[in-house]
Amino acid sequence: MSKAEVSMSHLIRVFTKPEQLNSKLAQIEQHISDNLADFLSQHVVAKKTSLEEIEKDFASAAIPEIPEFVSTHAETLLEKLVAHSVNTYSPRFIGHMTSALPYFHLPLAKLMVGLNQNLVKIETSKAFTPLERQVLGIMHKLVYGQDETFYEQYLHSAKHSLGAFCSGGTVANMTALWVARNNLLGPRPGFSGVARAGLAAAYRHYDIDGVGVLSSRRGHYSLGKAMDLLGMGRDEMVTIDCPSQTLSPEKALIAGREYAAQGKKLLAIVGIAGTTETGHVDPLDELADVANELGCWFHVDAAWGGATLFSERYRHKLKGIERADSITMDAHKQMYVPMGAGMALFKDPKDSNAVRHHAQYILREGSKDLGSTTLEGSRNGMAMLVYASLHILGRQGYELLINQSIEKARRYAEMIEEDPFFELITQPTLSILTYRVVPPGVHDLLANASQQTQQRIYDLLNQLVVSVQKRQREAGKSFVSRTRLSTQTYSDKTITVFRVVLANPLTSDEDLRAILQEQATIAQETQAWQELQGLLLPHVKVS
Amino acid sequence: MSKAEVSMSHLIRVFTKPEQLNSKLAQIEQHISDNLADFLSQHVVAKKTSLEEIEKDFASAAIPEIPEFVSTHAETLLEKLVAHSVNTYSPRFIGHMTSALPYFHLPLAKLMVGLNQNLVKIETSKAFTPLERQVLGIMHKLVYGQDETFYEQYLHSAKHSLGAFCSGGTVANMTALWVARNNLLGPRPGFSGVARAGLAAAYRHYDIDGVGVLSSRRGHYSLGKAMDLLGMGRDEMVTIDCPSQTLSPEKALIAGREYAAQGKKLLAIVGIAGTTETGHVDPLDELADVANELGCWFHVDAAWGGATLFSERYRHKLKGIERADSITMDAHKQMYVPMGAGMALFKDPKDSNAVRHHAQYILREGSKDLGSTTLEGSRNGMAMLVYASLHILGRQGYELLINQSIEKARRYAEMIEEDPFFELITQPTLSILTYRVVPPGVHDLLANASQQTQQRIYDLLNQLVVSVQKRQREAGKSFVSRTRLSTQTYSDKTITVFRVVLANPLTSDEDLRAILQEQATIAQETQAWQELQGLLLPHVKVS
Repeated sequence: MSKAEVSMSHLIRVFTKPEQLNSKLAQIEQHISDNLADFLSQHVVAKKTSLEEIEKDFASAAIPEIPEFVSTHAETLLEKLVAHSVNTYSPRFIGHMTSALPYFHLPLAKLMVGLNQNLVKIETSKAFTPLERQVLGIMHKLVYGQDETFYEQYLHSAKHSLGAFCSGGTVANMTALWVARNNLLGPRPGFSGVARAGLAAAYRHYDIDGVGVLSSRRGHYSLGKAMDLLGMGRDEMVTIDCPSQTLSPEKALIAGREYAAQGKKLLAIVGIAGTTETGHVDPLDELADVANELGCWFHVDAAWGGATLFSERYRHKLKGIERADSITMDAHKQMYVPMGAGMALFKDPKDSNAVRHHAQYILREGSKDLGSTTLEGSRNGMAMLVYASLHILGRQGYELLINQSIEKARRYAEMIEEDPFFELITQPTLSILTYRVVPPGVHDLLANASQQTQQRIYDLLNQLVVSVQKRQREAGKSFVSRTRLSTQTYSDKTITVFRVVLANPLTSDEDLRAILQEQATIAQETQAWQELQGLLLPHVKVS
Repeated sequence: MSKAEVSMSHLIRVFTKPEQLNSKLAQIEQHISDNLADFLSQHVVAKKTSLEEIEKDFASAAIPEIPEFVSTHAETLLEKLVAHSVNTYSPRFIGHMTSALPYFHLPLAKLMVGLNQNLVKIETSKAFTPLERQVLGIMHKLVYGQDETFYEQYLHSAKHSLGAFCSGGTVANMTALWVARNNLLGPRPGFSGVARAGLAAAYRHYDIDGVGVLSSRRGHYSLGKAMDLLGMGRDEMVTIDCPSQTLSPEKALIAGREYAAQGKKLLAIVGIAGTTETGHVDPLDELADVANELGCWFHVDAAWGGATLFSERYRHKLKGIERADSITMDAHKQMYVPMGAGMALFKDPKDSNAVRHHAQYILREGSKDLGSTTLEGSRNGMAMLVYASLHILGRQGYELLINQSIEKARRYAEMIEEDPFFELITQPTLSILTYRVVPPGVHDLLANASQQTQQRIYDLLNQLVVSVQKRQREAGKSFVSRTRLSTQTYSDKTITVFRVVLANPLTSDEDLRAILQEQATIAQETQAWQELQGLLLPHVKVS
């Protein structure tokens, strides 16, 4: 576009005139509408494998001076961005918690942006505010199952809040611990409370030397971040080792008592309903007892696993969650809502008053503005997408989706166990599992090797997983992730494993077999594999 | 839908099959695509005026059991939600910072959801990560204008970060103060730093009794919220009165010294580039001197006003912003991007290392994952919309938009000053202004009235604004907001005023005249007006 064309009337057109039927952006949109899977498989080509190469397309900090035509820019987006995105829709992308989404979210996302509401206050959101409150109420009922009278009283109360909508699980965990902290160190005669007076004054007033949060080593990294942010300090995370992948109530009780004996105060136990790395569920009911015994808050991070509550068949796996003081849930995980829909839920509708705040021009006292008790300020209308999903899928639809994920994970675990090239590391509790590739014969070798050789084998097995995961990702057809774990079997070692999340309902057993097959093929081309074969060779000769 | 129909194959269709051409949701989408303004004016009917009535549509916490057909649900959304939303697209909605958006955001929002990337890590975002870094670099250059070598070195560096993308200005302010806090109370020999050891230990180690943040009374409410969250405590906000609407550098220096004299440490001065309530810009250059003098961090909250930097004509109004250690900007305000695009920018690319964190399965040390230094975890691809806007509007396009807003605000101020029914309270520095309705004769009356009558008049004038604002909003044709201010003219009073934000490029002078006309008409129907006339009456008789 030449400078002469940059006029106010051009800009007004950019604001008001939809794309012409055959413009590039209109074509893209039509393709997405007609067949998203086809659009993605055609455009997500991922030819550039190294990040450094992709970075070259985004190398300059120069401020674009002259406006570009929309269609020109749409071409750029396709070539530079879409081509090198991740095809999260693909049935063989089973490495993270993002998966294919129900189709209706596409037009609804457009409606959301067309309406462009701001949920911080009723004035800029109107019906979205009661809708968001209702969504929080439905999720609250899913967990806590209170009766009708309870929700009649609290759902739309200006003085109460059943939870806080937020951008994701990290902010939800922060919000929950913030509320917990402010309740623990709240105002009382002679002290204005931690919210006003700050942490140092609160410690002095309450005569405590530190405030801690206890969780297993599988706790999400956002807990440490929250400890930093909230001023309690990362070192006050009481982290319990968990070779069995779940938090032992006995160990938690002992550690909690030891912590208190140091003159410190345990703020909360965090139970996990679906750990990020292995999908395990802590023994929530027993942990609720421990929290009770220790007199502390009980938070459950159910960001990923919370949706299991929709399943009558499997909700028993989360038994005890209804005793949590607060809960984190992400609708953009197993509720199949687009990225950006986290929630903190509070058992007691009064608890979030500990973080309530007001301002002159909005969030006036007595208003029902949602922004009065949220960590974030301005927020978009994501609650509409959760609302729509809840109705269009319904509890029964969610139950089917949850059940098929869990049952597919079991079948994948069986495939792995039957395959001589692989070793299942953690069984799926829900629909996450971990495994690794182990060349046939290596286990026997390991049993009889010198300590030095054992160590070399461990290193090579770890390298093998790293290489295979990386090459498979770069090949672009499938994606699994990897992590490092310690387990009961290898209790003295931290091992590197593939991590798989079976969320996508489009993933078939055939996809799973193909992924394993590809991994086995890639593995045999790696240097680590060759070296392991070299170690096996003399061993074979002897027999 | 009956229970029998809830099958996995039905669900797979929900995931894979686009809406049929004539389905309700497809019709909605088509209408949005063809003419958003028409869609909104047809469907945002706002017949229910009271929130309580709207709440009835969202009253139950029952979990929807049976799936609904998409089209059935689309009808529900239209009737219950869209009908009672706020028409932010309307040229006469001039009460808040959300306005009409460029059309291309609608298809791009669909693309964003179709791709459903997660920006917390490269594995789930690929090209989106370098893109987001580039957007942060462009915004950094807009403010700080460093040379090419600087951006070559830092734009894609794994060990540095030019800023943090986030959901909005609140989180950006929190992020900036978090980074400032962790740098102030960082590690040094014998102390592991506040991030690890916590605030109370940091105060002891550094031998300080409190950590405060100084801003004018016009500072955004998120600052107090950040003080609570970060554990410094709301009472450590050093809030300076500002009858002139801007923070006096002299007062700031004195207050800063007094604060230090109490054995406390001033963490930061927050200058505001466009206050939320009146749009004023603090004297940033002088405040940078004060921060320098006091040896503290200088943060500028430019959430709303920052985009003025695109305008060669008006960027001088933000002189000194380039001296800020950190800056908050919201692309969803004057950059016309949909809700949910905030940014914190850091002058020194090393500063955000003070909040850097890692985890086993993602954000590994040395990775370029954006999540390593952000407050939030999982995030969506909003950066794409900012990127597209920067290119499609260009600096020149933004300049035109910014200039027309500022100049329109001036014209509106003139209309108000010329109208005998209104009183301009604050002149627009940028494109926000405040005013109120004052019946002719009331100013004279005020000058000669007893103190008791004066007080009554003040109360009535405040009531008048409240009533007019409320009724105008309920009438549904126009929307201005209101706030409470103290000003130089009425220095001993806090008065209630209309607040107008002239962001929407579609707002014409005719719209503005119509809004004033409607306010004048509504005002004369209020009880406050009648009572003021009653007070005027004897006064008129005397003359």
